[in-house]
Amino acid sequence: MIMGTEVPRRLTVLGSTGSIGTNTLDVVRQLGGRSAFEIMALTGNGNIELLAEQARKFGARLAVTADENRYADLKDVLSGSGIAVAAGVSGLEEAAELDADWVMAAIVGTAGLAPTLRAARRGANIALANKECLVSAGELFLDAVGTGGGQLIPVDSEHSAIFQCLDKSQRHALERIILTASGGPFRAYTREQMAGVTLQAARSHPNWAMGLKISVGSASMFNKAFEMIEAKHLFSVRPDQIEVVIHPQSVIHSMVGYVDGSVIAQLGTPDMRTAIGYALSYPNRSALDVERLDFARLARLDFEAPDEARFPALRLARTALERGGLQGAVLNGAEEAAFAAFVAERIGFLDMADVVEAVMDQLADLGPAGEIADVVQADAEARRCARDVVSRMAAA
Amino acid sequence: MIMGTEVPRRLTVLGSTGSIGTNTLDVVRQLGGRSAFEIMALTGNGNIELLAEQARKFGARLAVTADENRYADLKDVLSGSGIAVAAGVSGLEEAAELDADWVMAAIVGTAGLAPTLRAARRGANIALANKECLVSAGELFLDAVGTGGGQLIPVDSEHSAIFQCLDKSQRHALERIILTASGGPFRAYTREQMAGVTLQAARSHPNWAMGLKISVGSASMFNKAFEMIEAKHLFSVRPDQIEVVIHPQSVIHSMVGYVDGSVIAQLGTPDMRTAIGYALSYPNRSALDVERLDFARLARLDFEAPDEARFPALRLARTALERGGLQGAVLNGAEEAAFAAFVAERIGFLDMADVVEAVMDQLADLGPAGEIADVVQADAEARRCARDVVSRMAAA
Repeated sequence: MIMGTEVPRRLTVLGSTGSIGTNTLDVVRQLGGRSAFEIMALTGNGNIELLAEQARKFGARLAVTADENRYADLKDVLSGSGIAVAAGVSGLEEAAELDADWVMAAIVGTAGLAPTLRAARRGANIALANKECLVSAGELFLDAVGTGGGQLIPVDSEHSAIFQCLDKSQRHALERIILTASGGPFRAYTREQMAGVTLQAARSHPNWAMGLKISVGSASMFNKAFEMIEAKHLFSVRPDQIEVVIHPQSVIHSMVGYVDGSVIAQLGTPDMRTAIGYALSYPNRSALDVERLDFARLARLDFEAPDEARFPALRLARTALERGGLQGAVLNGAEEAAFAAFVAERIGFLDMADVVEAVMDQLADLGPAGEIADVVQADAEARRCARDVVSRMAAA
Repeated sequence: MIMGTEVPRRLTVLGSTGSIGTNTLDVVRQLGGRSAFEIMALTGNGNIELLAEQARKFGARLAVTADENRYADLKDVLSGSGIAVAAGVSGLEEAAELDADWVMAAIVGTAGLAPTLRAARRGANIALANKECLVSAGELFLDAVGTGGGQLIPVDSEHSAIFQCLDKSQRHALERIILTASGGPFRAYTREQMAGVTLQAARSHPNWAMGLKISVGSASMFNKAFEMIEAKHLFSVRPDQIEVVIHPQSVIHSMVGYVDGSVIAQLGTPDMRTAIGYALSYPNRSALDVERLDFARLARLDFEAPDEARFPALRLARTALERGGLQGAVLNGAEEAAFAAFVAERIGFLDMADVVEAVMDQLADLGPAGEIADVVQADAEARRCARDVVSRMAAA
């Protein structure tokens, strides 16, 4: 049960069949299921069976597949359930517009932009797990949140930590944000060793069970670069107020430093349900059955400064923050294309950053985004540019 | 300047010439001096020169020496200053009654009880650095704070950390308090090595510059025992909700664990001015010129479980908490007497805990305190009992 609330919160989960989505529904179950949450809409993509099962189990009003071609299948498996069914972009819009108080925004990629902005603009409280809303469309998204007047609560473990550590009445006293980074599997490699890294090595992240994209992003620290940009938007800090420190155990999820010298940190086991539970219960905290930290068993926590020569992603994030405008979208699109080229074994591990930097320089003058279409266009242009750079590299 | 306030806060410092007191006045200076604080009263003991200098510098209305025999001296050095002078118990009462909004309670020992309770009862916000108010007179003191309706803000680094980490709106979600302990200089000693510890070795605390009493209390972990009792009263937790973990670097000052698995920690350099500044600025935070934490330079933080066979003080604290009533006063008085016997080289290092335990058992049935006199009497009785136990030990 969510402590401190009397009526169920109406919740929509955009992207309920992915990792964040399934964990969200596990948290919903732990917090009391239907007595604590009234599920308005669930959306997924191709995994129709799981989506239908979730919709039945939690009594959703609406189930949406983003894949229009699967509309009939979803309609079929949910026939007789009383659950409304929709599909495609308009289906996602419909889900976003349903009057849920809380929306878990967990659709991956630029596909998550339109429905999340729509939900924010109508005033829903947004539990944010979609990266592009802030990295690629930061100003637009914050405008939408401001217009709607809902709360914005980050779900990413690092930003959730900062959000939990930040006394909202003392923003004027915030001195710095300290993002912790595991450093990934190549933390102790030389630059030469990193140049020779294989796909297989890159996917073995030490602390978190995660997908290939996130594992590689952790190894290259492009994930941390995105988090720096997200932190800037979420917490209204200057780029020079954002520090990154390598902390291999990932126990301290991130920290906030105040002008009086105090540093406040949030710590936990590597279980995303703590951050999800916090976002769904905010401003309250609810009991969760997650593993507790045992400090004597942890024994030690380590820290080291990140080496930007080996992790150029951090430097590129600062460049993007300084340039502003659509550079976040460019960085994000270029990184995705560079990642694809690395996975296809067309470029090496360290080449990813070179590709991204070349693209950012080429597209340094894109102005600010006026609407989502500008973001989508910048993203596409960055990917196109990146593919050109990769081709030239591969030909050289 | 204290951020978020427009008029100077009226401040009295009970015990301005000691370590906490002088640091408090340094913080007052850093926060803007007379433009931020109007100093109502300063009190000291035998260091008349320093007291008079402080009173002149900060424009105090009243200066009080607790030592009645020094009244004439103080009067003399402050003649012509326009600063009122008082002495003795009645002088301390007068200082406590002056209508300061904030009172730094930094008188050491049971002598601090009466003036601090008086200030609390009249509704002052209490920045608490006196140990006995909570350890020996917990219920009485909390009653006084409740009657007065002021805020109670701890100044001790551990309790300040917990206070900073505790979201006051989420007390129902507090699961545990994790007090960190440096473990002192004998952290890695065997019980046999500890039995042979000398006074000289006990005073060399690894992280904090502190007096002999506190150094020995850190080495025996009786300090931590007192902090457990203080934490119980300050944060209304059950004894089983208080954990102690050894953390030799003393960078994490303490932590709070919530029912959702989140742990919030406060970290800082070992500078008591951060906690003092927090207490004087509360609920705001003000900029302080104290050293900032540099995590890359810290490199690592260690943790281990405390061994209660080598640190029986922790077990004795739990016993005192379970028995309640005046057992805190007994524990405190017995420890002070045992400490004196150790310093006089009449008993060994580990004997201190044996003395305290014997006294606690003898005086297990003292009821709750009805007034300060009961606390003072229990304290005196515990000291007397302890001296008897020491004599029997020394004779054996």
